[in-house]
Parts: sequence; C-alpha cells; structure tokens
Amino acid sequence: MKKGSMRTTMKDLVESTGFSKTTISQILNGKGDRFPETTKKAVFDAVKELDYRPNQLAVGLTKKETKTIGLIISDIRNVFFSNLAKGIEDKCRENGWNLILCNTSDMHERDLEYIKVLTDKGVDGIIYGMSIDSNLKKAEESLDFLKLQKVPYVMIDRTISNKNCLVVKTDHETGGYLATRHLVDLGHSRIACITGPPWLKDNQERLKGYRKALEEGGVTYDPELIIEGKYTFESGRRGVDLLKGKEFSAIFAFNDLSAYGVYSRLKELGVKIPSEVSLVGYDDQFFSTLLDVPLTSVFQPSEKLGARAVELILECRKEGRYRSGEFMLGPHLTVRESTCRYPSGS
Amino acid sequence: MKKGSMRTTMKDLVESTGFSKTTISQILNGKGDRFPETTKKAVFDAVKELDYRPNQLAVGLTKKETKTIGLIISDIRNVFFSNLAKGIEDKCRENGWNLILCNTSDMHERDLEYIKVLTDKGVDGIIYGMSIDSNLKKAEESLDFLKLQKVPYVMIDRTISNKNCLVVKTDHETGGYLATRHLVDLGHSRIACITGPPWLKDNQERLKGYRKALEEGGVTYDPELIIEGKYTFESGRRGVDLLKGKEFSAIFAFNDLSAYGVYSRLKELGVKIPSEVSLVGYDDQFFSTLLDVPLTSVFQPSEKLGARAVELILECRKEGRYRSGEFMLGPHLTVRESTCRYPSGS
Repeated sequence: MKKGSMRTTMKDLVESTGFSKTTISQILNGKGDRFPETTKKAVFDAVKELDYRPNQLAVGLTKKETKTIGLIISDIRNVFFSNLAKGIEDKCRENGWNLILCNTSDMHERDLEYIKVLTDKGVDGIIYGMSIDSNLKKAEESLDFLKLQKVPYVMIDRTISNKNCLVVKTDHETGGYLATRHLVDLGHSRIACITGPPWLKDNQERLKGYRKALEEGGVTYDPELIIEGKYTFESGRRGVDLLKGKEFSAIFAFNDLSAYGVYSRLKELGVKIPSEVSLVGYDDQFFSTLLDVPLTSVFQPSEKLGARAVELILECRKEGRYRSGEFMLGPHLTVRESTCRYPSGS
Repeated sequence: MKKGSMRTTMKDLVESTGFSKTTISQILNGKGDRFPETTKKAVFDAVKELDYRPNQLAVGLTKKETKTIGLIISDIRNVFFSNLAKGIEDKCRENGWNLILCNTSDMHERDLEYIKVLTDKGVDGIIYGMSIDSNLKKAEESLDFLKLQKVPYVMIDRTISNKNCLVVKTDHETGGYLATRHLVDLGHSRIACITGPPWLKDNQERLKGYRKALEEGGVTYDPELIIEGKYTFESGRRGVDLLKGKEFSAIFAFNDLSAYGVYSRLKELGVKIPSEVSLVGYDDQFFSTLLDVPLTSVFQPSEKLGARAVELILECRKEGRYRSGEFMLGPHLTVRESTCRYPSGS
C-alpha cells in the first residue's frame, strides 16, 4: 500500500482497491447496498489504512483550478472588444492566469456552443459579452445555460435587465448624457440618434441619458429622430439615409463604428462635418483621432472594464461562492473637431 | 446489464463490472497478473456479454477529437490578426469545429505558455502567429516546443527560414514588388521603406520584392532609405523622424498600422500627401478607406489565409500524420489617393 506524506485522494483509493470511483463513492456515501459485503469491506479497509479523509472544505465551487479564464466576445474586429480583451489578458497575466477567447461573430447559437466548449475545457470562470443578434428570449437562454455550468461568470458590457448576476459595464446613462449635453450646450436642439439594438440595456441607458440632457436643456424629445441601428458601420450609413427629409443639425451615433458609417456617408453626400452636421461617437477608439475631422466621442474605459471583470472572477474563486452585482465605470467626453456651435459661426 | 443499439464503450464496462478503467485496461492488455482470477473472469464475461470491441483505428495521432483548434496571435488589436481570426473561426464553424484564441501581446514568453495551455486543454491543432519580440533564437525555441506537443500546427504569416513545418502566408515578395513597382511607374526614384523586424521572413521578402522592382525600373538601391520599424503605429511615426534630412519622394510602410503612423506624423509636420510625399501601406485594412486621403495599400487576403490554415489542420487530422510545406496566397495592390506622379503635377 502507498504510504506517502501527501494527503490521500480518491485516486489513491481507486488504485489501491481496483474499484471505480463511482463504486467507492457510493459505498462511502451509504449507497452501496447493491455491492457484495467483501467489496464494501475492501473499501473501508483501504480508507482506514490510507487514512482517507474526504475534503470537508468542498463548497459550491470546485477548488481544482486550471487558472484559466474564458472570454466570449461578439466581434473581435470591433476595437472596443479587442481593447477589452487586451485589458482582460493583462490582468490575467498579472495574477498568473491565462485567457482563452472565443469569438461568436454576433451569432447567438455560437454563444451557447462556446459556453459549452469553455466549460468542457475546464475554465475557472467565464467573461461573457452577448451576441448582438440575441433578442430578449435568446439572451435569457444564454444566461440560463451559463448558470448551469457551475463556474463563476461576469457579463461584460451587454446585459439584460432582469437577471441576477455579475455585470461590469460603463455607466452608459452618464455617457449618453455627456454626449447630448455637449450638443445642447452648443445650441443644437434637433439631435438625431443612431442607436444600438433596442432590447439591449446599454442602448436603453444611453437613450435615457440623451433624454435627460434634452430635458435639462429644455429641448423637446422627438421620437422621429431616433433611428434604430446595430452598432455596425453599415447601420451608421443606413441611418443617414433614413434621416433624409428630417430636420436635424447633429447626430449622436451610439458607437464609434456606426459613427464612422455616418461620417463616410455624409462625406459621400457632400455634407460638411461639423459646419453642416455635428457628429458625436461613443467608444473613443484610436482611429477616431486619425479621421480628417477627428471625432468627438464618449470614452469607454474598455481595458479597465476587462481588468475589473477578471478581479471579480478571482474574488469569486477565492471566496468559493457566486456573487451578483453591477459594477459601473465612468465614461468621459473627448471633444475633438466633429462638433461645433449651432447655428454654425454663431 | 445494459443492452442498447450503441457501441459498447469502456465506460459501459466500468459501470457493468464496478472495476476501474485502469484495472479493466490492464486485464484486457494482458497486464492483469496482480488481479485475482475472479476479477479477470468478471471483466472477460462483461466484454463478451456487452460485445465490447476496442477501437482498432487508432493511428499516429490520437483520434479522440475535441474538434477544437487553438489560435495564438500576437496582437488582437491589429486588424490583420482580427480578420485572420474571423477567417479561421468561420472555416472552423463550417466544419463543425470550434476555435479558441490566445493573445500574446507580442511577448515571446507568452507564446510558450499559451502553447502549453492549448495542449493542456486538448486542442486538436494549433495555428500559430509568432510574437514580434522574438528574435531568431526565441522563434526557434517556440517552434521546437510546438513540435514537442504532438498536435498538428500551422505557422501563420510570420515564420523563420530554416524550419520544416506547415506555413500559410501571403506572397510577400510579390506584395513588396507591387507596391514599389507602382511608385517606380509613377516616376519615384527615392522611395523610403519603414520595414518590420529584420529577422522576420515576411519582412525580408517584402524587401526582396522592393529591390526587384527598383532593379527592373533601373533605380539604384540606397540602404540609407531603409528604416527599421516594428509594424506599429509608433514605429511609423518614428520612421518619419528618422528620415529627416534625407531626400525622398515616397514612403512604403510595410504594414497599414505603421502607414497610419507615417500619415499622422506627416500631417503634424504639415507635409502634404500625396503632392509632397506619396505613401503606400500594406494590409489594406478597412480604416485605410476612411482616411482624409484614402491609403493606397497592398491587400493581404487575411480571411482566406485563416481558412487555408484550418483546412491544413483538418487534412492532417484526417490523414493521421504531420505534413510540411509552404502555402502562399497572392496579394494585390489597391490604388487610392495617397500616391501620385513625381514630380507632382507632371
């Protein structure tokens, strides 16, 4: 029989007796009626001889760590997400953890598959950014499936209202407020929005901030100026076309990628930014500084969001339990050259 | 006893006999001398009753597939790599495979760690883009370590000369040639280069194409005009400063990211593109179209490169053996507004 200084494990019992883990577990848990007495005696003898003590500390989460976090993001080509991934990776490394990443290309069914792949690979936590093609029902399906996996998880950026889980995000109401307040302060009163998908909470919050700033500035809210977008370049371009014939002097695009779409379409149409139309984006990506007319944009602290998500996973592991709560980081407005006073030259 | 239409597995034998997988395997492989005759008989009886047949197809590579490919890339924030990842992911999905991705932030020691993480997670193949901070010795270390892992792997984009492995890449000599030929045809004879790291084969090949085009055009090669860069935005900006005092009318930046650096620094210095300096990039990223002066650039088929790498991994798995070889895809030149005839207006 093996006599070492290491704590005896189930594996030692399996090796010593020749019985399977299932057989031994059932016998030790008083569910071994179907086994012969000789089998049961052999197991109990081995337990005594090897001094086997089942781990009493076992709680909700298994403690056998692989020190790996899985990240599911919806579009790796969106700079917001690649910066987020960078922040997550750096924080992981700082703590001696590794990151593996799955990209869903914004397709809901891949969310579910990758949740499964990551748990099959034994990750110790999942950071999850939902696909944009999810509707409310699909989003609930993903979250319910994630809960089943018994690993700590953090929702990043995108979430839905009624779920009790960990969320790390930018304070989007403040973000929407800052963008709109800036335009109102410049004298704009007809401010169009190219939004994200309406079912997403982060979109709803930007819109809430927009309305709050209008109200404070005494500007009437006009639903005609709210154009539904998809956070994509193409939906920004399309948004401009959908605004045709409407009166407006400024556009607030709910992310930089769609702002680039607005920018490119306005340029094609010969509309001057900012003298004819002021434009505000949201994300404050690196490329916004390189544009002919550098973009005024709401800065999201994407790397910090990623780092905070990792910290929360590590705290869950340390405490051995799940937590819930919403953690918000503050945005700020970076004013560049794409916005100006209305009427222009006034 | 279980009687189903499914093939009997080792797991069924474990459940049926109560013995562990190790015990059963040893007995079936003639190594069960230490077990009592009753144990051996019980195992053989179960094998007969359940019609258990071990899988005879096991060959060089283990066939127990997880249908997962691991991708190691050096900088997820570089659009070339995020497009590559997109191409890999789409091709994986087309074949019912999954992709997990690791980002090294261009640090060599992370290359080694992630190779280990991915093999520990049981991936069936690795697609590997080397870190830029690797020197020749480090690159060899990575490749030797990768070979040890006994999974098929494909080097993507970056490689070193003397290694016998699978490589998928753009034909960079042609790429370098196309960019330079275009400038020579426009009348330029003083063409500066902002290169990548000199030890990288893809950099050497671009340079070879550059020299070939100069030679064909009867232009003298001047090593003074070759500035060493790092494929980064900052190294593009720095390249412009290092060219101070030298005579040149065009710059060929060896990737778009460094071309953006050149673009931004020239703009700051008040140098007009293309009338004072023509600029050609390499990658043909999406953002190159959005610049004030849209960038002339060599298009790399990044999504197709990714797809081809996946096909090669799948072929290796199917054939059950490793392969080697270099697979090149052709680039093309996309001419936009950042290049013009020299002297300007001629």
